[in-house]
Order: sequence, then C-alpha cells, then structure tokens
Amino acid sequence: MASTDKAARRAKFEGTWNVIREELMDKFEANGMPQEACEWYGKNLDYNVPGGKLNRGMSVVDTAEIIKGRPLTDNEYIQAAVLGWGVELLQAFFLVSDDLMDSSITRRGQPCWYRVPKVGFIAINDAIMLESAIYQLLKIHFKREACYVDLLELFHETTYQTELGQLIDLITAPEDEVDLSKFSLKKHSLIVIYKTAFYSFYLPVALAMLFCNIPLSYTLPSSATPIEPYKVAKDILIPLGEYFQIQDDFLDFSGVPAQIGKVGTDIVDNKCSWCINAALADATPEQRKILDENYGVKPTNEEKELARKMAAGKNGEEQGYLGEAEKRVKKVYEDIGLRAKYAAYEGRVYKQLNEMIDQIDEGAPGQQGVLKKEIFTSFLGKIYRRQK
Amino acid sequence: MASTDKAARRAKFEGTWNVIREELMDKFEANGMPQEACEWYGKNLDYNVPGGKLNRGMSVVDTAEIIKGRPLTDNEYIQAAVLGWGVELLQAFFLVSDDLMDSSITRRGQPCWYRVPKVGFIAINDAIMLESAIYQLLKIHFKREACYVDLLELFHETTYQTELGQLIDLITAPEDEVDLSKFSLKKHSLIVIYKTAFYSFYLPVALAMLFCNIPLSYTLPSSATPIEPYKVAKDILIPLGEYFQIQDDFLDFSGVPAQIGKVGTDIVDNKCSWCINAALADATPEQRKILDENYGVKPTNEEKELARKMAAGKNGEEQGYLGEAEKRVKKVYEDIGLRAKYAAYEGRVYKQLNEMIDQIDEGAPGQQGVLKKEIFTSFLGKIYRRQK
Repeated sequence: MASTDKAARRAKFEGTWNVIREELMDKFEANGMPQEACEWYGKNLDYNVPGGKLNRGMSVVDTAEIIKGRPLTDNEYIQAAVLGWGVELLQAFFLVSDDLMDSSITRRGQPCWYRVPKVGFIAINDAIMLESAIYQLLKIHFKREACYVDLLELFHETTYQTELGQLIDLITAPEDEVDLSKFSLKKHSLIVIYKTAFYSFYLPVALAMLFCNIPLSYTLPSSATPIEPYKVAKDILIPLGEYFQIQDDFLDFSGVPAQIGKVGTDIVDNKCSWCINAALADATPEQRKILDENYGVKPTNEEKELARKMAAGKNGEEQGYLGEAEKRVKKVYEDIGLRAKYAAYEGRVYKQLNEMIDQIDEGAPGQQGVLKKEIFTSFLGKIYRRQK
Repeated sequence: MASTDKAARRAKFEGTWNVIREELMDKFEANGMPQEACEWYGKNLDYNVPGGKLNRGMSVVDTAEIIKGRPLTDNEYIQAAVLGWGVELLQAFFLVSDDLMDSSITRRGQPCWYRVPKVGFIAINDAIMLESAIYQLLKIHFKREACYVDLLELFHETTYQTELGQLIDLITAPEDEVDLSKFSLKKHSLIVIYKTAFYSFYLPVALAMLFCNIPLSYTLPSSATPIEPYKVAKDILIPLGEYFQIQDDFLDFSGVPAQIGKVGTDIVDNKCSWCINAALADATPEQRKILDENYGVKPTNEEKELARKMAAGKNGEEQGYLGEAEKRVKKVYEDIGLRAKYAAYEGRVYKQLNEMIDQIDEGAPGQQGVLKKEIFTSFLGKIYRRQK
C-alpha cells in the first residue's frame, strides 16, 4: 500500500472519531452531569483514545473491505469504524490501567494519564469509563443487527483473556522481585498470547468477520469438509500476534533509540521478555549466574546521574545509556547468540504462517462472505522483518 | 420476616456460591493457566465476593419470588441466584477499585484487598476480573433465554451509571483538598443516585423483573392506561436508594460505634455527605466559617496518640475519639438542628414513597408477571428508622 494511500486511510478513520466522541459526550451530558465532570470525561477521551498508531482500529475497516471485496458504503464505513474505535477504546482501557499497575512514566510521548496533575488514582475510574464507552457505542450502532450479541460476547471474552494475560505477567515478573526461575519460554508464550495477541490480532479480524456476517461454519463447492472460519482465523492470528510481540521484545534489546523511537528498558524492568527466556533456555551455569545477579537490577544513582548529564548534553535526547548490570546481561545475550536465534525463529514462523495462509480456500473468484488470504498476508507483510 | 427464616434464606443463597465459584474456576483453568495464577484468582474471588451482607444479591431472589407469588423451583432458584451473585460481583468490582482510589484501610473487617501482601496495584486487574466474571456467568446460564440481551445491557448501563457517580464524587470531594463551595444538596443527590441507588436498589429489582419476563409495558383490565413497570420501579427505587444513603450519612454522624459497628469518619475524610450539605444550606456566615476551617481537617499527631492510648486501654475497641476540628463541625451540626432536619426528611420521604407504592395496580388477586407492592414495601420496611 502506498504511503499516501495509507495516510488517507488513516485520516478517514481518524475523521470518524469526532462523530463517536460526540455520541459519547451526548450520552454523558444526558445524565445531567455537572459541567466539571463533562470536561473531565472529554479530557479522558481526548488524552487516551485517539493518539496512538490506530493500527488495531483501522484493521477492522481494512479487513471488512477485503472480505467484501469492495470499498464500504458510507453507512458501512461508520459501523466498521465504530468497531475499530471499540478496539482502540479497549486498548485505552488496558493501557491507562496497566500504566498505573506498572508505575510507567510516559505513553505515546506524553506523561501517563495517572501522572497528569489532579488525576492520580481517578485514572482507575477513567479507565473503566473507557471500557463502558465500547458498550454504549455498540448499543447505538448495532442493537438492531443480527451480530449484536456476538459482538458483545466477543468484546467480553477478549477483555477477559487480556486480563488473564496481565495477571500472569504481573505475578510472574513483579518489577521489584526478580526470580528468573518463574520464567520460561512456555510462560512467555502464554503471557503474550493472552495479553496481546487476542485483542490486537484476533479481535479486529473477528469483529470484521461478524460485521460481514461470516457464519460460524460454511461449506464451499470445492470440498465437502465444512470450514470453521473463526477457528481458521484464530489459528493463524494467535501465532502471528505472538510473533509480533517476540519481535517487539527483540527490538527492545537490539534496536537503537533513533530506530525504535524509545530506549529499551525490559532488562532493567525485570520484564518477562522473549530475550531473557530464550537466553535462559541455553545459558551455561556461569551465564545463568550472571543473568540471576544482573537481570532487573536498576542503574546505580551514579549511573543515573551520568545518563542525565549525557542526555542534557544532547538537547535531552534519549541516549540509551546503559548501567553496568544491564551491560552484563546484554553481553550474555550476545555470547549465547540471541541475534541468530531470533533470525532462525523469524524465518521458521514466517514459513509456517505462509503455509497456513496458503491452505485457505477462498472459493470461486470474487466470492463474498468467506475468508480471504489477503486478510492475513496484509498483517504478515506489515510485520515481517520490521525494524521499528 | 422472622430472623431464623432470614438466616435460612441467607444460608440457601450463600450455598449457591460454591457452584458459581466452581464454574468460574473451571473457565479460568480451561485456558491452561499456571497453578499460581489459578490460586491467585481463587483467592481474589474468596476474599472479595462472598463476605458481605449479601442484601443486594438476595433481593434478586426475594423479588423474583414476590413477582411469581410462589417459591422458585430449584432451576429457577439457581438462575435467580446467578443474577444475585452478578450484583455482588459488580459490587466487589466497585469496592476493590474504590478502596484503592480512596486509599481505604479496611473493608468488611479485614484489610482492603490492595493492602494484602503482594497484591498492591494488581488489585486493579483483579477488580476488572470480578467484572468479567459477571458476563461469563450470564453466558453460561442465560445465553438461551429471551432476556439475555436485556440482562447484558442492564449490567452495562448500571456499571456506567455507578462510574459516573464515582467520578463526580472523586472530583467533588478529593480527600486532600477541602473546598466546600463545590458541595450542595443537589450535587449530593446526584452522587448518591448514580454511585449507590442504581446498582444497589434498581438493578436487583430490574434483574428479577427481566428474569420473570415482565414486559416493558403492559395494560391491566382495571385501566386503559398502559403501565411501564420498569419506569414505575425506577421512580420508587431511586429515591428509596437516596433515602438509604442519606440515612447512612446521618448514622455516620449520629451513630455510636457500638451501634453502627464502625467509627464515623465522613467529617475527617472530607466526604460529600448529606450532613455537611444540609448544614451548609442553613449555616450562618459564622457557622460557615467554622465549617470551612474544620471540615476535612485530620486530627493532630497528639490527638491520634491520645486516641490510640484510649483504645489500647479498652482492649483495642474503637472509641470514636474525636479531634478538636471534628468536634467543632459536630457542634455546628447540633446548633443547626441537623437531627430535627433529618427526622423531618425521613418522615417526608417515607410518606412520599408509601404514596407511590400505594398507587401500584397489582391487577387481579394472584395475577402473575406484574409489579407487586410487596417488592417495594419489603425494601422500605428494612430501611425505615434503621439504627445500623
């Protein structure tokens, strides 16, 4: 997709936010809320919902167009965009509450919502109000549609799955208590699938499928075997989402700030990242000892001061300055050959995903209301060998 | 209702919790979660859901029996109890997150969940998992019922209303910034209706009405005017819930610990209570000055020490020892005649509620599937002139 085309698609999707925001504000004000509360809610929406990359939300619209094999009508576009903004609202709900749970500092280049003056713990209630907004929008736009209950259940189920992932992550890798014996590649896979893959990859596609009235099961003339399209989609999108997150974890280690737009902090923050789990799987007893002693160890005050001075010397730009503990962990990663391991994983998963996608039966040319390979190749194309 | 009867009813309702807990655990474990996470979720459920008075949950079952005019069958009982536990789960979700937002210390005689060792901010995710449990139970027990979508929407709407109430409360009365000019009886009414009345009074009754398939509108032979039963119920239950909370606020001021089972802290905590709002409405400029200077003012360290010593001298029993600032506020309450004001309010609202209840047309004797006066008199009887 050409970049101007992509920018235009994004602008069109972003343009629907004003309509949706207005509906949410109208509903809020209809309850006779005081002016001060209306302003607060408006700021909560503006600060936390529209400022991200919007990939998840836009993929609902894109997938619907691929399935229908034609551009959406204006009415269809608004409805699909409501589902897309539903995914963005769900993500905003998770991010606002996760940032508080993780004591994060910034999000999307601005202070986390709970760190904005006067917000603090009110962020918890604000997060839950973002979740509530999803169901208000679904009621307004889908109450009379056949897919309404399925949409409600899909959002409920995905919310639950993401909370499961967040729970395992929080009890496996508390920031202040390093215990690498809790980590494993299997645990990492479980966390990533539940915390990220369901809501980021399966949810947008399944929403578009429900929107296009794709049934739970159908049979094509080319074969007598019934196809279960939601299962097929899940079987591809969950490993694809896992691949995306493993890539994210790897870039946190290997990427430089100028490339990935942030300083990697997974090692210092005791994150249950693919890197540490892949390293643990192959570490010698000596390497394991280094990892145990240095993973999740914060820089000393002297190191922090040095980092601050270096950053100030370059107009406050992020330098990716490393403390000694972090350097030792990275040395083990290099010694173990983590870069080659990652390259091998990426090659393997790319091949497997392509094989699964190839097996999709699209029916007759131009056939509508069935799964299309392009749904999945468009995701995979954006992810494969991405550098940021 | 005799107290042994009440105890038996409570025991029966409590007995269904084990079934429901098992269903939630099964669903959790079916996701292949690690042992540690299963134990965590089980503890979350046990600590936060079943330990309250269960009045809200039980009132779903009670109301369903009143509407049907007969005891529920075993199957009906389980279904109604699921809705009752849904209300209790919703309340648990609110209380766990509110306690964190309010930095509360104890709840139901034990430390607030977020203060339990290792829990901390994970309580936010745990609270949201309690909310998710509602929709899992509804899917298991009601997916095939005609009322399923209405039940989902009612829970969504009530959740939203309660969050609105919590938001106005949080921005009107932050614990650390006293500004009585933000307070008013009107604001108090709005907070109480949204934060408490909808979920505590309207929700259980409306759930029971949906469960009994009471339609949105019906006409009785006695009159040609259609009755909108959910509107009738709301018009009674919302002021009834407001009355309940105003009573709670008044008891926080007037009750002694031996009677109400806790030490009133609304004055010290800068709560937007009915008492301060009723006092502000009638305060002279001199009295207003005293309230401005002393409301929300914490006891000094000397006063806290004294309170601690007095408590220790009586086996640690709560003494309700007052700091000087709190004493001055209470003196203004007495001077303004708050006790008489409350008695007048209670008499007035009791009369109004009885008049509204009297106007309910129950149809022919023994008629089923319509509103019954007893639904409302049973609530009012439990609340009127309660002392704890």
